[in-house]
Amino acid sequence: MTTVGILGGGQLARMMILAGAPLGLRFQLLDPSAESCAGQLAPLQVGAFDDRAALARFVEGVDVVTFDFENVPADSTQWLLDHAPVFPGPQALAVAQDRLSEKTLFRELGIPVPDFAAVSDRAGLDEALARIGTPCILKTRRLGYDGKGQFRIKSPADADAAWEALGAQAGTVGLIVEAFVPFQREVSVVAVRGRDGEFRAWPLTENWHVDGVLSASLAPARVDAALQATASAYAQRLAERLDYVGVFALELFCRDGELLANEMAPRVHNSGHWTIEGAETSQFENHLRAVLGLPLGETTMRGHACMLNWLGEMPDATAFLSVPGGHWHDYGKTSRAGRKVGHATLRADTEVALAQALSRAGQVLGRLGQVAPVVARLEEGGA
Amino acid sequence: MTTVGILGGGQLARMMILAGAPLGLRFQLLDPSAESCAGQLAPLQVGAFDDRAALARFVEGVDVVTFDFENVPADSTQWLLDHAPVFPGPQALAVAQDRLSEKTLFRELGIPVPDFAAVSDRAGLDEALARIGTPCILKTRRLGYDGKGQFRIKSPADADAAWEALGAQAGTVGLIVEAFVPFQREVSVVAVRGRDGEFRAWPLTENWHVDGVLSASLAPARVDAALQATASAYAQRLAERLDYVGVFALELFCRDGELLANEMAPRVHNSGHWTIEGAETSQFENHLRAVLGLPLGETTMRGHACMLNWLGEMPDATAFLSVPGGHWHDYGKTSRAGRKVGHATLRADTEVALAQALSRAGQVLGRLGQVAPVVARLEEGGA
Repeated sequence: MTTVGILGGGQLARMMILAGAPLGLRFQLLDPSAESCAGQLAPLQVGAFDDRAALARFVEGVDVVTFDFENVPADSTQWLLDHAPVFPGPQALAVAQDRLSEKTLFRELGIPVPDFAAVSDRAGLDEALARIGTPCILKTRRLGYDGKGQFRIKSPADADAAWEALGAQAGTVGLIVEAFVPFQREVSVVAVRGRDGEFRAWPLTENWHVDGVLSASLAPARVDAALQATASAYAQRLAERLDYVGVFALELFCRDGELLANEMAPRVHNSGHWTIEGAETSQFENHLRAVLGLPLGETTMRGHACMLNWLGEMPDATAFLSVPGGHWHDYGKTSRAGRKVGHATLRADTEVALAQALSRAGQVLGRLGQVAPVVARLEEGGA
Repeated sequence: MTTVGILGGGQLARMMILAGAPLGLRFQLLDPSAESCAGQLAPLQVGAFDDRAALARFVEGVDVVTFDFENVPADSTQWLLDHAPVFPGPQALAVAQDRLSEKTLFRELGIPVPDFAAVSDRAGLDEALARIGTPCILKTRRLGYDGKGQFRIKSPADADAAWEALGAQAGTVGLIVEAFVPFQREVSVVAVRGRDGEFRAWPLTENWHVDGVLSASLAPARVDAALQATASAYAQRLAERLDYVGVFALELFCRDGELLANEMAPRVHNSGHWTIEGAETSQFENHLRAVLGLPLGETTMRGHACMLNWLGEMPDATAFLSVPGGHWHDYGKTSRAGRKVGHATLRADTEVALAQALSRAGQVLGRLGQVAPVVARLEEGGA
């Protein structure tokens, strides 16, 4: 019997448990909240990620440790390493936790990135604006999540307001200025690397964000094969440099046919949820296969898929379930403004059928605005 | 929040929980064994199915009751009906629990069945043999499961031995003699009927048994469309007569292009496990949709699928997981001779690819004998 410990007990842990149970796995969770939704399916230790006593209870009997939430203190993962294998390892987490390290690494690996500059004080912000130009974005280096800790600077006149919003964090988590990229599309490559170095990527996914939070994902993205191959090559280069084990996502901007790396997430990713129904092997199962040293499953698609995120509260399941190819994912959470409470995936054999199913879902749920950009993309001529 | 109560906590309940969690469902189980494998994923009440105190604890807070194990005493389901809706209902259970009622109903509905006769004493057995002829099978009317409680009668000379084996049960669970059918194939139709009467069937599945226990299932069965339609029509007729709600399986013999009903199972069924990966909606999800009054999901196939049962102990997962399209299902049980401990499903886009994957699985697991009849069927010319 193999037990996987997961730091964090949210929807990612929950979907990992659902994918891992058929592999005969048991799970053990650690999360600061007793209400964590994955706790409905596996034993949950309640405690802070830096609480040694909680970490000790959590790791007892665990064969391997992985993450639902990557911003776990480095000290904690280091401590856990003395008690169990931890995948992905601390190096990957350290890079992904710090936007500056991350972008520096992208550049080192020849992966194009939007221009960026570290900012340590008010004068440094002016220097960065002068060099990078506006519009640009001031961000915290660490602990950014879903658009929080960011300030858009439209012109140099916004510098004071930006500093007022985030300047206090310059000395704690650090700040970075990134050039604003007038991209046409946002895409992500979700990929997996095994303990033995085997690498597989799912088809490129196009993503739509609303207020900085993922709203919809379409796979495969309607891009040419060369772009797919480039994105996959970037992901592989990154995974190999970090000796990465498990699933990760690399988010990219697509501007005039060129890909620019935005950020990586060292875990299963919201833009890969469609793989549950849309791919031969889901990101959740392949993540577990990878961290356990099992052979990886195929990442080939089964038709075309679109994921729609549900924020705040769940829409009407009954209305949705009559839509052909509709698959529902209620995370078992209570409603709260902006909270990721669930998602749905529509799967179809053709792009035409997928567009029809999306339109119908938009109608029955009163969410035509959410599906509109995806339907428009599917109805564009050519690929 | 909706809570589904399941009588029985085996692998069927376990797979129902895995299918129901994404619908936001909670579960509550009742099983005589504290080791029930579904108890790894949901709260388990330990108690006998006729223990009123256990039934009362089980049904507390439950919105609807269903079954992992259909041979629950009729008194118990009747008692539960005063506390929660129960699907499938007592009428369907009563029929399915008694081979004589079941076969009598098949005949009433114009569904062909092998000849049969009730047997209440030793003289009755001789009369039945004289009328039906040999070879035939003496079976208990109730509580038969996976080939137990059956005796094959090759010639009238075997009557004494048959009576010695099962005669004592004539006055308790009752006995029935059934003609032996020299069938070419065993097939099953797994179907679902909603609370509103909506009916859907998955494609016909061919099944191979070893020592009376399912060994492999292939879907879609390689039969002509007319046979598919006939099987589906039989299933629908049966479901409508019983006002059935939920998933059920109708097992049929195929002899010289004719279908003869063997038995029905009023629950999700081993021959429908392939629907998890091989169909747009699995039998487990559609069963839950049905008992909750939600719209049914599509039962269309995604390519071709073969399920292999694992009995006694799990084979080597690591070897299997390198097979393309291979999906593993470990029920989290301890090993025991003859016990259903897991299964695997191979899914492929074509029959040729499925045959290749099956051959490879047979090789890496040292189970060529188990896959051989399925591979042979796939390699036959025509459909």
